[in-house]
Amino acid sequence: MKGLWFTELQTPTIALSCRVKQTLHWEKTPYQELAILDTEPFGRILTLDGVIQTTVADEFVYHEMITWVALNTHPEPRRVLIIGGGDGGALREVVKHPAVELATLVEIDRRVVEVCRQYLPEIASAFAHPKARILFEDGVAHVRGQVAAYDLIIVDSTDPVGPAEGLFTAAFYGDVYRALRPDGIFVAQTESPFFNQELLRRIYLDVSALFPVSKVYLAPVPTYPGGLWSFTLGSKRHDPAAVKPTLPPGVSTRYYNPDVHRAALVLPNFVRELLKP
Amino acid sequence: MKGLWFTELQTPTIALSCRVKQTLHWEKTPYQELAILDTEPFGRILTLDGVIQTTVADEFVYHEMITWVALNTHPEPRRVLIIGGGDGGALREVVKHPAVELATLVEIDRRVVEVCRQYLPEIASAFAHPKARILFEDGVAHVRGQVAAYDLIIVDSTDPVGPAEGLFTAAFYGDVYRALRPDGIFVAQTESPFFNQELLRRIYLDVSALFPVSKVYLAPVPTYPGGLWSFTLGSKRHDPAAVKPTLPPGVSTRYYNPDVHRAALVLPNFVRELLKP
Repeated sequence: MKGLWFTELQTPTIALSCRVKQTLHWEKTPYQELAILDTEPFGRILTLDGVIQTTVADEFVYHEMITWVALNTHPEPRRVLIIGGGDGGALREVVKHPAVELATLVEIDRRVVEVCRQYLPEIASAFAHPKARILFEDGVAHVRGQVAAYDLIIVDSTDPVGPAEGLFTAAFYGDVYRALRPDGIFVAQTESPFFNQELLRRIYLDVSALFPVSKVYLAPVPTYPGGLWSFTLGSKRHDPAAVKPTLPPGVSTRYYNPDVHRAALVLPNFVRELLKP
Repeated sequence: MKGLWFTELQTPTIALSCRVKQTLHWEKTPYQELAILDTEPFGRILTLDGVIQTTVADEFVYHEMITWVALNTHPEPRRVLIIGGGDGGALREVVKHPAVELATLVEIDRRVVEVCRQYLPEIASAFAHPKARILFEDGVAHVRGQVAAYDLIIVDSTDPVGPAEGLFTAAFYGDVYRALRPDGIFVAQTESPFFNQELLRRIYLDVSALFPVSKVYLAPVPTYPGGLWSFTLGSKRHDPAAVKPTLPPGVSTRYYNPDVHRAALVLPNFVRELLKP
């Protein structure tokens, strides 16, 4: 369609727009407004409440980086929990690791999974994988009921407004800690280091208060505000900066590699300053 | 002013918009359209022909990264040439290095310097520095006339359309090579590794054909297309990945540090693939 643009207000004063070929799907789910658009620059994109969640063009950076740093820090990540991640991209990466026996994905909104399976098959490719277990329930409630159940907990959520709000609280991080095994690792997407500095700082300090090892790392995601994204990792034992990461044989990645693993953990001065206690 | 936005078409199908408080300056120079806007999210910004060149909010990343990697790779960068860089940000960084004796800035458009000195004093702070020499002439012509004259040549140009086109050619890189001393280093901004892949690949291969050491490194600049920017470095002797960089005493930076120096040179798989011969 000529003249059709999608515009996301990334902040009240910054907007990113992209040309749309056609709108493929739109609905109001019980939780949010969900749309799939076919765009010129990014291919198909998933939006929730008007916010770009993932695009075929740059999803590999985000999904590889939210999974492989932790997967390659834990010596034997057998049981992995993904909270959110209804597009399936994180799950696609997790099931590639040969040590993983069970990858549980807890997504509150069943329609996200169903629509992504239909329209984003490159991303939503692992929902039927034998290692995958999909639960449609609230991630906060799920974690609250677990004790020493997981080696890895990955929080692949929307922004901290609406359905995901509870995933950004110190109380939730305490539940995550208890749900992890004695050498477990937690990692979450924690927004832009340029535009969400107070949030990132608060989360890092909350995680640092619980976990003996806490790290922030960065990766570029062009369709997210500011183009640079942060991940915060809390670990009971293993330090992602101290391990010698290798990719399992046969696993190929487009962004992540062992050198990138280490480099992503190197923080520029303004982020170091931000994270000081 | 309520309702005023600046919108840059970053590509024909991607636009970045930001709220404008007021337009502070606008003119047509002999070379381009020049504007200074006061924006809500990024403070004051400089645009040339409708393209954001620098903003008070994120200029530190770009200006530190286009200068300090090379400054800290050369053991004694006494004579430095900056081509373009009319906002003065690269010059501000270069004159901080105690080894620098003369920093020559060659800007084709005198009005860029004059307007930045008036409206962007934090960036344009070194034009009157005793080490600085400002020439208003064509960078291509300037370099063509030099033999073994510079330790460092930094190309801080606009995009490869309009006045800067000649700064992206193999012929120019040959002139740069000749203008450098026997252990000289060349570095240039080389656009987005997401959106300008053919250009980046071509430049890297051109530079690799001339210089024994050639590297691409990356840094995030939120107001540039894709939010991630590339720099290509050619060096006659010193390898930026092999040195142990330190910042001179008294020099403070907001993005660059010695660990960032090394990490910026680590490339994700898709960029490694792109640069393969």
